[in-house]
Amino acid sequence: MSFQAYSLHPDRLFDADSSIRSVARALYQEIRQLPIVSPHGHTDPSWFADNKPFGNPAALLLQPDHYVFRMLHSQGISLESLGIVSKDAAVEVEQDPRKAWQIFADNFHLFRGTPSRMWMDHALTEVLGVDQPLNSKTAQTIYDHIDAQLKTEAFLPRSLYERFNIDVLATTETAVDTLEHHCRINESDWQGRVITTFRPDSVTDPEHPDFISHMALLAEQTCEDIHQWAGYLNALRKRRAFFKSTGATATDHSYPTFFTTVLSQETCQSLLSKALKGELSSTDAEQFRGHMLVEMARMSQEDGLVMQIHCGVFRNHNQSLFNRFGADKGADIPLKTEFVHNLRPLLNEVGNDPNLTMILFTLDEDVYSRELAPLAGHYPALKLGPAWWFHDSPEGMMRYRRMVTETAGFYNTVGFNDDTRAFLSIPARHDVARRVDCNFLASLVCEHRITEEEAFDLAHELTSGLAKKAYRL
Amino acid sequence: MSFQAYSLHPDRLFDADSSIRSVARALYQEIRQLPIVSPHGHTDPSWFADNKPFGNPAALLLQPDHYVFRMLHSQGISLESLGIVSKDAAVEVEQDPRKAWQIFADNFHLFRGTPSRMWMDHALTEVLGVDQPLNSKTAQTIYDHIDAQLKTEAFLPRSLYERFNIDVLATTETAVDTLEHHCRINESDWQGRVITTFRPDSVTDPEHPDFISHMALLAEQTCEDIHQWAGYLNALRKRRAFFKSTGATATDHSYPTFFTTVLSQETCQSLLSKALKGELSSTDAEQFRGHMLVEMARMSQEDGLVMQIHCGVFRNHNQSLFNRFGADKGADIPLKTEFVHNLRPLLNEVGNDPNLTMILFTLDEDVYSRELAPLAGHYPALKLGPAWWFHDSPEGMMRYRRMVTETAGFYNTVGFNDDTRAFLSIPARHDVARRVDCNFLASLVCEHRITEEEAFDLAHELTSGLAKKAYRL
Amino acid sequence: MSFQAYSLHPDRLFDADSSIRSVARALYQEIRQLPIVSPHGHTDPSWFADNKPFGNPAALLLQPDHYVFRMLHSQGISLESLGIVSKDAAVEVEQDPRKAWQIFADNFHLFRGTPSRMWMDHALTEVLGVDQPLNSKTAQTIYDHIDAQLKTEAFLPRSLYERFNIDVLATTETAVDTLEHHCRINESDWQGRVITTFRPDSVTDPEHPDFISHMALLAEQTCEDIHQWAGYLNALRKRRAFFKSTGATATDHSYPTFFTTVLSQETCQSLLSKALKGELSSTDAEQFRGHMLVEMARMSQEDGLVMQIHCGVFRNHNQSLFNRFGADKGADIPLKTEFVHNLRPLLNEVGNDPNLTMILFTLDEDVYSRELAPLAGHYPALKLGPAWWFHDSPEGMMRYRRMVTETAGFYNTVGFNDDTRAFLSIPARHDVARRVDCNFLASLVCEHRITEEEAFDLAHELTSGLAKKAYRL
Repeated sequence: MSFQAYSLHPDRLFDADSSIRSVARALYQEIRQLPIVSPHGHTDPSWFADNKPFGNPAALLLQPDHYVFRMLHSQGISLESLGIVSKDAAVEVEQDPRKAWQIFADNFHLFRGTPSRMWMDHALTEVLGVDQPLNSKTAQTIYDHIDAQLKTEAFLPRSLYERFNIDVLATTETAVDTLEHHCRINESDWQGRVITTFRPDSVTDPEHPDFISHMALLAEQTCEDIHQWAGYLNALRKRRAFFKSTGATATDHSYPTFFTTVLSQETCQSLLSKALKGELSSTDAEQFRGHMLVEMARMSQEDGLVMQIHCGVFRNHNQSLFNRFGADKGADIPLKTEFVHNLRPLLNEVGNDPNLTMILFTLDEDVYSRELAPLAGHYPALKLGPAWWFHDSPEGMMRYRRMVTETAGFYNTVGFNDDTRAFLSIPARHDVARRVDCNFLASLVCEHRITEEEAFDLAHELTSGLAKKAYRL
Repeated sequence: MSFQAYSLHPDRLFDADSSIRSVARALYQEIRQLPIVSPHGHTDPSWFADNKPFGNPAALLLQPDHYVFRMLHSQGISLESLGIVSKDAAVEVEQDPRKAWQIFADNFHLFRGTPSRMWMDHALTEVLGVDQPLNSKTAQTIYDHIDAQLKTEAFLPRSLYERFNIDVLATTETAVDTLEHHCRINESDWQGRVITTFRPDSVTDPEHPDFISHMALLAEQTCEDIHQWAGYLNALRKRRAFFKSTGATATDHSYPTFFTTVLSQETCQSLLSKALKGELSSTDAEQFRGHMLVEMARMSQEDGLVMQIHCGVFRNHNQSLFNRFGADKGADIPLKTEFVHNLRPLLNEVGNDPNLTMILFTLDEDVYSRELAPLAGHYPALKLGPAWWFHDSPEGMMRYRRMVTETAGFYNTVGFNDDTRAFLSIPARHDVARRVDCNFLASLVCEHRITEEEAFDLAHELTSGLAKKAYRL
Repeated sequence: MSFQAYSLHPDRLFDADSSIRSVARALYQEIRQLPIVSPHGHTDPSWFADNKPFGNPAALLLQPDHYVFRMLHSQGISLESLGIVSKDAAVEVEQDPRKAWQIFADNFHLFRGTPSRMWMDHALTEVLGVDQPLNSKTAQTIYDHIDAQLKTEAFLPRSLYERFNIDVLATTETAVDTLEHHCRINESDWQGRVITTFRPDSVTDPEHPDFISHMALLAEQTCEDIHQWAGYLNALRKRRAFFKSTGATATDHSYPTFFTTVLSQETCQSLLSKALKGELSSTDAEQFRGHMLVEMARMSQEDGLVMQIHCGVFRNHNQSLFNRFGADKGADIPLKTEFVHNLRPLLNEVGNDPNLTMILFTLDEDVYSRELAPLAGHYPALKLGPAWWFHDSPEGMMRYRRMVTETAGFYNTVGFNDDTRAFLSIPARHDVARRVDCNFLASLVCEHRITEEEAFDLAHELTSGLAKKAYRL
């Protein structure tokens, strides 16, 4: 393998224009080595508690990454052939990870122009030391190389955490999680900071598949009578306190649609009773969810946990795929979302509290310039999360900055987060965000819309300052 | 103060690319000195009638500018601390304008990347002669400097009007305004052209807070029986004629939502009767408003006044702020708007009349390429207003040009208007628009999509030709 | 006429930045001579069957082009004055094509910055050999020149087809068309490939003005009992087979709104019976249309015809113009469209079939990044059609690539199609698309997001590879 053969270009993602590129380079040089602040993500805390080697290349890089296998599926490649486990016993699932890897390599051209390609190239070259491009011919050699690497001490989770220069890494757990892995990490002598995030959807959304069982667990864990409205809220308060005690600084909320409302206590009690009997209509469920966002905001006012809201996705859109393979198989599709009316009950309740931080995400880019930037540019409690999921990409980030900055400013945004379960892609994702942000700032400098001094200051803010402040890290 | 320390860059807002910048400079050089045509705005006509000095720096530049204090509020700074008067006697309002100004200066970094920053920098350096950047340290020195300037003859309203090289400046008054200031300006020997715009919302929208009182005034002013449909329309005709007699060339209409319809005379009479008794349902009020846009268009066909329509904003979204401070406190949020169906009744009534001009504005950028550009590229009566309010900004204007031009052409647009009550920002706003337009034209030249000769012609049109023609000035 | 006076710039549509432009040039050089693949359009097959000379310049270039006369109409120029035939006998229609042409030339500046201008310039200079700009003074000279050209052998339809280097040209015919022209072309010794496309809207949309008469024709042509559900489907199968036998590889479906559903056979029979009696409510008609898209997809699974869907346009928005001039007079306006819910019934039925190809078009650009790219990046049967109609333009195409590529990749798109009835504009339209695509690829190369080698490969795919594969040509 020759190094010349394949490496990332040092100027990638910087503008073709030499004056912008030159400023972008200087800005990037300033912040590229800053530790990674990752306040929102989905890595597995047991990796850092156990510190055992990762599995084979396909199990690490291909099979868990729905960004990757959705694209292969879109071109007619079956998930079974990629080794993804099916509930349908009739269809044979590929058992040999080398064969799955080969299919991936054979079709790597499909990712041209996508962020998956950039992340994968970065993970292969920068993290795993691969020095040739992935394709049909190189697939098995590269497989061997990665497989060997993964067996070394340098590729254990904690070693990688340190090598990645991570300052803090947040994971996400349901409200009834035992947080055993986080507790073990806290009790260990390892210095890494891996914190959880309180994600209560399964006990605040009566239509969540785990609602009944998780409510039972919630009662058990807290010794509260969750059939009574006050007891239910107390139970949630106790779990929040437990999460906070292990290091959590934030909560996370995700519903298919976005809606908030303020209900009377009587109505709440009545909806709760019906919900626990499984007798809630879907309209009532929406009311319950909408009110619970307000309750969560009120608890955030009490305990100081930062509140994140990610709504507006049709989950598991592909019914037959869901039946065969279950959830999270690359068929989640964004929905149109309306915030002006739907956010108002919540904002009228808590929006003027400067001590509360609510971070809003959207996959509906239309609302950035029309709704979210004007709202975030006004309400003290509201901040905008970064370009997310499908828009965690150079074009998506650039559109976000261009649509948000003029109305909300930089200081009502919260920096980047990687939102990923693909641990090896974390450096790549932060690197992309840093490059795109530096390039955006450089373009403002070159058009004399901010000074170079301001750009240096802002580059620091966008890389870690805003995230640390917003997430109270 | 040293001039080097702080001044606007002569190439600001021009592309970083040297070939585009070079063409943009040449285009800008050609039109930068053209007189300002300001056909739509909200300055106070008494300034020009009375010609008295403006107040202190905070009263002039900070307290009336909702673009500015909304951003400060979004970061937890109270409006009271900025000296903005509250209805809530329990909260102390800052009485010292110097202290309010200091807070503004302390937080000036919040405006990085926003148009407010550009306008403020322009007003400070170009208009007020400040030669250092505004920040915590310079705040009081700059306050002193501005305060002294405002007391001089050169900073009287009429002097500034002349210095700004304004050709015509339109203000906006309600249908029942006495227009005393405009009459005094007309009767004076001053040569400035300050004209009013007929804004009848308070007598065409039954849900307007002033509807009942303004309808009574309307009856009184016109000696018409406004309880009869014909009398009501006649009253409006008379007021339009009065506005026109003082110099008005246009009307302006703003409703929260956008809807048009054509009702029978019987229905109109019935709705009017209910409206005057305060018995209109909100559905009926929408019908009334929708029909009144059609009546206004018919009157424009009669009297030649140009009709402007600005709809789609949720006013005073922040309830508790509204309760304490009243309207216009930076909490107006744009709404999704649909034009294809909602505009059809109006267009089917008057859209093919080439002698009528209706100018449509939107804050919902989605409709530019999907709805408004196709409509304006077809109907003779329809023209598109410029990027407006939150989108009166470099990115907003650039998106507007890129989404509108290919389908509607340049000639179905109406040039720039500043829509401002901040008099000192007028030169800045027009300068930004001229620069962005020149830069857009330059990019078309450099991609060989128009010739340089065409670009010079278009630069003139976009700066003043189209506005003069559309607004009949 | 001097050649210097007017010619297309060889670098038109390439970025002003010299590094991007240089790569764009190299890419374009590689693919500019590739034969034109035109898998979707509306040229008249009789032109190629009869091979008779085209009419006069106005009849060829102005009167049939609704892109052109809509813009003139928007500026108050009557369609009658352009020689467009009206049903209203009271209004005189200009009979002299020279006079209509003169008006067009007098107002040619209206098209500055629009694609019509680029196409017209290309047709005039490159196809017709005009060497001066079109304006008031040159109008008649240019008219003479074109008129003379059109009488020569070189400007017969088949000669132009060959000169344009067209590989395959698809037209569009209703389900009950006799395809006589295509049969005559097939039977002739001419080598050109002009194929039809199966467009069954008039027999699948009960609200189509020709529904009753075309259903009668359908029955007659197929000897099926179209009153019975099974017979109706069989009739459609037979027509599809006939279209396929003459060379068709695709179907095309266009409804005002987009909606799909799966109904029981009983419901279908009941709706069909009502439809044939003209007794269908508009809600029922929507159900019928929605189900028929599913039936058409099922037939495509059987016979392999590629299915194209173009929905979301309010046709003939201008009622009085429609009354006087009929359909297709430049008053079709795009509508907001929702795909996530509306496409799901169809996708759940056939979306996972890798042997089916459904190509989706939209005029609602909002859905690209939010809905269509995520859907096409997942479902094997789904591909995205190119930027279409109003967005068949440099800005429209660029927005499409930037919003679609990161999520759907290049390989879930299908290349360019011209969708035109303006035969002389075909080379121009493909040339614009090739230039914009090469420029987009060049920008990715210069930002190091793809390699130059990949860009060359992709340039071939976007120019013809993807279209040939998707349309099975």
